[in-house]
Amino acid sequence: MAYELHYWPTIQGRGEFVRLALEAAGAPYIDVARGPEASGQGVPALQRHLTDRKATLPPFAPPILKDGPLVIAQTAAILHYLGPTLKLVGRSEPARVATQQIQLTIADAVSEAHDTHHPVGMGLYYEDQKPEALRRATEFCRVRMPKYLQWFETIVVRNPAGSRQLVGGKVSYADLSLFQLIEGLRYAFPQAAAQALARTPAIVDLHDRVAALPKVKAYLKSERRLPFNEQGIFRRYPELDLP
Amino acid sequence: MAYELHYWPTIQGRGEFVRLALEAAGAPYIDVARGPEASGQGVPALQRHLTDRKATLPPFAPPILKDGPLVIAQTAAILHYLGPTLKLVGRSEPARVATQQIQLTIADAVSEAHDTHHPVGMGLYYEDQKPEALRRATEFCRVRMPKYLQWFETIVVRNPAGSRQLVGGKVSYADLSLFQLIEGLRYAFPQAAAQALARTPAIVDLHDRVAALPKVKAYLKSERRLPFNEQGIFRRYPELDLP
Repeated sequence: MAYELHYWPTIQGRGEFVRLALEAAGAPYIDVARGPEASGQGVPALQRHLTDRKATLPPFAPPILKDGPLVIAQTAAILHYLGPTLKLVGRSEPARVATQQIQLTIADAVSEAHDTHHPVGMGLYYEDQKPEALRRATEFCRVRMPKYLQWFETIVVRNPAGSRQLVGGKVSYADLSLFQLIEGLRYAFPQAAAQALARTPAIVDLHDRVAALPKVKAYLKSERRLPFNEQGIFRRYPELDLP
Repeated sequence: MAYELHYWPTIQGRGEFVRLALEAAGAPYIDVARGPEASGQGVPALQRHLTDRKATLPPFAPPILKDGPLVIAQTAAILHYLGPTLKLVGRSEPARVATQQIQLTIADAVSEAHDTHHPVGMGLYYEDQKPEALRRATEFCRVRMPKYLQWFETIVVRNPAGSRQLVGGKVSYADLSLFQLIEGLRYAFPQAAAQALARTPAIVDLHDRVAALPKVKAYLKSERRLPFNEQGIFRRYPELDLP
């Protein structure tokens, strides 16, 4: 049975980390909110999950993965669950724990990237918090982004199984997520990302290898890959980038 | 062999979620950074983990759990790992996934509580971002905190195994973490938390039951429980609370 992925249909957002894992593994899935409402799909199907009064554990927010009767939210929990089935995580307990730890650090970096344009109010527009956004983005570009990228670089370089992945000798969902983080940072902060990535060649190579995986490459060229835009997590507001 | 917990010695912070699990389970552990430097403990021992050039996966940040050769960072990953051994999570895969999903949502709420006093710069003092903090805290108190607490209330009320825990019929690490979140919100935002919790009686009851667990009760009365203060995640700045 195909997985169901429920996520906002017009942005990559956090759903993209799940989508990349499903695509890289060639797993059958329905991107429900992007399907036709006439077939019971579309945004109403997603919203039914959020408001279902019979659900014992209604998700707090998308992305949501449905696998038969199981409904899971929280990106890192979904990926931890999918990892073994999709063969996107090592089999040993230490490998699973390490991959999850890295994924959660990627999630922290993603949240901080989001907060550059929404530092004081998620319910407000960016236009209503531009001075605050500039302060937050300056620290993010100068301090936080380089710190995160340097940490991922260290993990890759020190991987005892070789510097082609973050954990062990095979591609994991954390590698896919790091690819996506780099994509997003390059979109949102082209100058700052270029400066930081110039010092982290191993994760740039990792990014390029992920992009060249046949299934990922085909996906990125397809219409299933949404373009970045200014409604998602990674937004290009040139005034927030480093000069 | 005793677990080693490495966390900043003067604040509860994110380390407290791990400490509570270890204490509630009666697990032997050494709170390394609070130990004497003369015995190889203290903050230098913590910092060695962060800067160890031989570690293949040096933690990005504390808390850090050491279990023999395994070194794990990221609060939710640590709890997911400890859960089965400490008997603080259900045995089934759906129970483990549900507990982790809730824990990650608690972590999101904790991060947002932190950002009320540090909305634009983690490297800056609160005093350097007070106007921004007031904007962020107002939305947090009015919108985000009630939304999170209402979600936890829903999960508890709908638990098919009874409304005494979040998942299944036994206390899990997510229950302990929800207790700590409520403790922190009441400390930081006494007015706003009282207003929001007045509408969520089931999780107030859950909080009280956790506090009354014999091992938790003994811990909370001990010197091992640090008091809240204005260096941690939950800080009492009265100007940020609702009037």
